[in-house]
Amino acid sequence: MTASSHHDVLGIGNAIVDVIAHTTDDFLAEHALVKGTMRIVDAQEAERLYDRMGPGLEMSGGSVANTMAGIASLGGRVAYIGKVRDDLLGRVFRHDIAAAGVTYRMGLTQHGPATARCLILVTPDAQRTMNTFLGACVELGPEDLDHELIGGAQVTYLEGYLFDPPRAKEAIRRAAEIAHAAGRKVSLTLSDPFCVDRHRADFRGLIERHVDILFANEIEICSLYETKDFDTVVGAVRGHCEIAALTRSAKGSVVLTADAAHPVAAAPVERVVDTTGAGDLYAAGFLFGLTRGRALADCGRLGSLCAAEIIGHMGARPETSLGDLAKAHGLE
Amino acid sequence: MTASSHHDVLGIGNAIVDVIAHTTDDFLAEHALVKGTMRIVDAQEAERLYDRMGPGLEMSGGSVANTMAGIASLGGRVAYIGKVRDDLLGRVFRHDIAAAGVTYRMGLTQHGPATARCLILVTPDAQRTMNTFLGACVELGPEDLDHELIGGAQVTYLEGYLFDPPRAKEAIRRAAEIAHAAGRKVSLTLSDPFCVDRHRADFRGLIERHVDILFANEIEICSLYETKDFDTVVGAVRGHCEIAALTRSAKGSVVLTADAAHPVAAAPVERVVDTTGAGDLYAAGFLFGLTRGRALADCGRLGSLCAAEIIGHMGARPETSLGDLAKAHGLE
Repeated sequence: MTASSHHDVLGIGNAIVDVIAHTTDDFLAEHALVKGTMRIVDAQEAERLYDRMGPGLEMSGGSVANTMAGIASLGGRVAYIGKVRDDLLGRVFRHDIAAAGVTYRMGLTQHGPATARCLILVTPDAQRTMNTFLGACVELGPEDLDHELIGGAQVTYLEGYLFDPPRAKEAIRRAAEIAHAAGRKVSLTLSDPFCVDRHRADFRGLIERHVDILFANEIEICSLYETKDFDTVVGAVRGHCEIAALTRSAKGSVVLTADAAHPVAAAPVERVVDTTGAGDLYAAGFLFGLTRGRALADCGRLGSLCAAEIIGHMGARPETSLGDLAKAHGLE
Repeated sequence: MTASSHHDVLGIGNAIVDVIAHTTDDFLAEHALVKGTMRIVDAQEAERLYDRMGPGLEMSGGSVANTMAGIASLGGRVAYIGKVRDDLLGRVFRHDIAAAGVTYRMGLTQHGPATARCLILVTPDAQRTMNTFLGACVELGPEDLDHELIGGAQVTYLEGYLFDPPRAKEAIRRAAEIAHAAGRKVSLTLSDPFCVDRHRADFRGLIERHVDILFANEIEICSLYETKDFDTVVGAVRGHCEIAALTRSAKGSVVLTADAAHPVAAAPVERVVDTTGAGDLYAAGFLFGLTRGRALADCGRLGSLCAAEIIGHMGARPETSLGDLAKAHGLE
């Protein structure tokens, strides 16, 4: 990664405000919710669930937006593309992403559905179960792409969740083409095993043609290749991507290239409070390291460190300076 | 406290949604903010400050509302009176207070200013500095009092912050009269030293005529009696209130009656993250103990325990069951 750039990473994703509440396993069972996964809900179901769930904590979220906030906290230069409405949550989202140091040039949409929200239920085991009302995100299309931002960023980073809104998949293919035409890299996170299940063919097509750096957890990557055998996964992913960073929760992660595999340990955490954003912040640390020319194993270590910070408290945006944290661990 | 009651405690306060952000001492200095205090700001100043402050975390707050949520978490029966607008933050406030198990009968106001918000800036020393836009709270008046709720609660609990909106002081005097006419107790927290300073005569009048149980920290109570001598304070407050619980941060608290003083140690905290709500949750533990007939020293211990929970994380609403916490410490 060499050519001069305006930004280290440009992220494109569903711009979402999270509503996070503690819950019980019984509540998940009552509402037939599958722990640890994300499902799409309509406005009515979102209202129904909100009425029944516990007191909430509202904060900006969105997988890729969390990653961008994480890279900014590490000291990286980042930009974001994602759509919100001109309503209170939209203004909250715009404030928070800008205040985190992320370039965000999009205006607030004046018409159409409300700003997206994700009702996140955190069980006592710190697992999160997500219910997303996509709202204004469904309007994202190729016309929202900022070619200058994409062409000027070392890496364009995309989330698998973008396959859910109807026209965003056109946008991400187009974004990948623009990035590659400018000699840049394209990165994708698979986001969620059910999301992979809903759009497997689209995912595979995108990865084969466009993805240089892939992020996934074990379950997601196994779902993508419809196998339980990790060796099969390793073979397949090596054929398609330059780099794959595969996370394995408490077992750490493994970074794969065509001819090497770097195992990375998970960073120790005093108390796991809420796993929301663990994958997003792993990607933040990894991409920051990569765009700063660090060795792949160190990129993985940076990822683990950032993930460990985020799971120690509620919410998916860092509470402390990740740059200071990285320095304290000799990984600046 | 004996007569049968519908609720242990009814709280009346400014209904506020908090916007909490990390900040630096430099930021406070730049904006001439006095650490650890609350100031009232208009809509324009709230916008100006919000534009400049860091990424926020939104959650229901309001001093007395926090106390009611705390008592509910301990297993107490509580109700709340406070005014919000029919807007997104108003619906968030109503959802959260009801979901916390607090009886809240008020409708959402259809006209007038927006739901109140408090911009809370947390410095690295965990101190909070608050900037309150009162919004819909300015409309609270005697006509909002629910006589049945007040007459049916063992204790009616009021916040000093109610002296700030124009007509709420009429409402709190009237509420105290209704409570006493029904043979109930009246409790007040002084809220903030500057608030005491703004309304000293009104505070003294209310305390002399109407307050049975007083909560204050050292600075507030010294401001009330315009003295730095704690013995002078003790003499004055004993003449006016049946019980005074005076908190002293890390030094714990002292519970005063006409003829006794019970010192109470602070509960140990692993890491102080954000002191927002420490006083509110001390009052929650204390009032829960009192309405359940516990000895005063145990009421103080319950207060310390609840305060310790709240300062271990961001925000002023409990993250864990305070009832379970009390049980674990033999204070159920």
